[in-house]
Amino acid sequence: MNKEKKIIQNNKVGIVKTHTFSFDSLKLESGEKFGPVNLAYETYGFLNKDKSNAILITHALSGDAHAAGVHEGKDNPGWWDDFIGPAKAFDTDKYFVICSNILGGCKGSTGPASINPKTARPYALDFPLITINDIVNAQKRLVEYLGIEKLLSVVGGSMGGQQVLSWLVNYPQNIRSAVPIATTIKHSPQQIAFNEVGRQAIMADGHWKSGSYYEGTAPSKGLAVARMIGHITYMSDKSMAEKFGRAKKDIAETFKFTADFEVEGYLRYRGDNFVKRFDANSYLYITKAMDNFDASGGRRFEEILRGIKVKVLVISFKSDWLYPAYQSKEIVKACKLAGVETTYCEIASTYGHDAFLLEVEEETHLLKHFLKKVFYAYEVTGDYGA
Amino acid sequence: MNKEKKIIQNNKVGIVKTHTFSFDSLKLESGEKFGPVNLAYETYGFLNKDKSNAILITHALSGDAHAAGVHEGKDNPGWWDDFIGPAKAFDTDKYFVICSNILGGCKGSTGPASINPKTARPYALDFPLITINDIVNAQKRLVEYLGIEKLLSVVGGSMGGQQVLSWLVNYPQNIRSAVPIATTIKHSPQQIAFNEVGRQAIMADGHWKSGSYYEGTAPSKGLAVARMIGHITYMSDKSMAEKFGRAKKDIAETFKFTADFEVEGYLRYRGDNFVKRFDANSYLYITKAMDNFDASGGRRFEEILRGIKVKVLVISFKSDWLYPAYQSKEIVKACKLAGVETTYCEIASTYGHDAFLLEVEEETHLLKHFLKKVFYAYEVTGDYGA
Repeated sequence: MNKEKKIIQNNKVGIVKTHTFSFDSLKLESGEKFGPVNLAYETYGFLNKDKSNAILITHALSGDAHAAGVHEGKDNPGWWDDFIGPAKAFDTDKYFVICSNILGGCKGSTGPASINPKTARPYALDFPLITINDIVNAQKRLVEYLGIEKLLSVVGGSMGGQQVLSWLVNYPQNIRSAVPIATTIKHSPQQIAFNEVGRQAIMADGHWKSGSYYEGTAPSKGLAVARMIGHITYMSDKSMAEKFGRAKKDIAETFKFTADFEVEGYLRYRGDNFVKRFDANSYLYITKAMDNFDASGGRRFEEILRGIKVKVLVISFKSDWLYPAYQSKEIVKACKLAGVETTYCEIASTYGHDAFLLEVEEETHLLKHFLKKVFYAYEVTGDYGA
Repeated sequence: MNKEKKIIQNNKVGIVKTHTFSFDSLKLESGEKFGPVNLAYETYGFLNKDKSNAILITHALSGDAHAAGVHEGKDNPGWWDDFIGPAKAFDTDKYFVICSNILGGCKGSTGPASINPKTARPYALDFPLITINDIVNAQKRLVEYLGIEKLLSVVGGSMGGQQVLSWLVNYPQNIRSAVPIATTIKHSPQQIAFNEVGRQAIMADGHWKSGSYYEGTAPSKGLAVARMIGHITYMSDKSMAEKFGRAKKDIAETFKFTADFEVEGYLRYRGDNFVKRFDANSYLYITKAMDNFDASGGRRFEEILRGIKVKVLVISFKSDWLYPAYQSKEIVKACKLAGVETTYCEIASTYGHDAFLLEVEEETHLLKHFLKKVFYAYEVTGDYGA
């Protein structure tokens, strides 16, 4: 267990470290035995005596293990820092919060950029095709390693929400609650299409070289285009209009296809920044895992859920057109039909899909109340059974 | 005038030819004098004696002069063939229909791929930045050359609709009616963003070489990605779900990032096909003209429209999220405030932006009725004045 002293400043988590958990091999859904596997992870707060206060946070496409606090000597807070800390939604005075970089990722966990022990070179496309269930199976190993048999909750938005649904379906006996946010049972053709165009942009980059670019130049331009497409889908028409309008950037250059409008400059900036911190092959593998995911396994989702004793909170956002509310309602409907105790809230946000990172106040209210209810019910009944 | 005999089969236009109209120079909005200019155009039906039955059709981003009929020895009909012909919306037994490839295009009109007489090589990025108003000013020259002082109507969807608005604002005395379909007074940041990502995809292609690729390999992969992004925005979430579902393509290949889902295969096919018929630099120039267009010239649109004696029909489509109905309603509101006689219809289609090409029955009904009313009003009153 990693209970290094954390400097808590006000309601901040303070300075945190990323740890690595390693294990020999994982049996993938494809049948392949893959290993060794490293998982980068961080924890915030402290595990209580009966190990009943652990919450697993699952990250989205471009996320990582660094969900809260800051790293020594750096000042960039974790990606969900607004939600994790003393008195926050995931109150680190009460709960033990875990976040790990997914299998296939590029932020400390084993992925296509990792060294293949058989060749002593990066896997590149020799990395196996992984699934959301594989990602969750690896997380399960980490949770076991941390000595936790049953999580108080597993919570995540977007692809994080797909992982939450995978936990719900595959490990209902190991979680007491699940919070899928702005997510879907399975991708629609439109969602697949946006991911596919991102993949095509990467593969169209001459530097991609069928994935074997690690000793040369990375396909940064292609990856930047993929990220730009992503960013458009994460915002709403309205939030873009509010943020940018038709304001033109003040530029001295006279070259023709410059970024005349602020929105163009913003997209280029976000695209260029992303390539500094992300691996193009990881982008391919992860988006493919998202597209292939189907929590219902091709059956009716309510059939899979029948008999599951997990409390579920589903959250969606009104202006989210990438993971529209109707998809969250499909989850709710299946849960209700299966007799799973489910609460649903559609938050009236204009931020689009990004809302799950931005609507701090409303989400905090919902999450705090929900987690308290689940935690308290457990404390009173001592109901360990599934 | 080009009244070559056309073979009319049933309600088809039959075999048509593309003609070229050339003129020495055009003063661009930027102040630059540019020339010579060629415009490729086609006409269908016959101009009546008093030249009162001419309708100009304006094309969208990837369109061209070939709006109806077939070319000798070929069997691909024009892009709006369902709408143009005997007894169709643009009834060629009654009306004389004109369509020209825009300035900056790559289908017979002068554009970046044309030979620059000063260098005897393609213009590439020496081609001037053009605007929607420049495109319309060139069309106006063609209409004059055809001997038409006043068009019965100018009709177009998407970027074609931007041209219609430009005609309405700049040449109200030369048109009796205007039909902007699925279009906008000015692009929103989201619309600019989608175009910008398309441009970035082209410019990210190593073969683009700052536009000077005409003697080498074209940036086909980048252009294909741009087109794929376009296609997603032209369809609706629902129409994609109906067309593709999550059906997987049957593929024998074992390479990893193949097109597993039908929607992926469709997008790749459409992207690959597009690059055979379109020039990447034209894509850059035309999308930039669309983004820079503002029919209101930065003022309130109703102020620009005041006093205009043109009948207007505005059409939008319920599931069109690229040019959402609210943008058409902004046109309608400004027309009403300015006292311009305006009819509005939002068609309940699930096809998304593509609906303007596909909702033949509903649009035909609206267009036929509207054009008849305008034509008949003219016939009775003989009202030539503006």
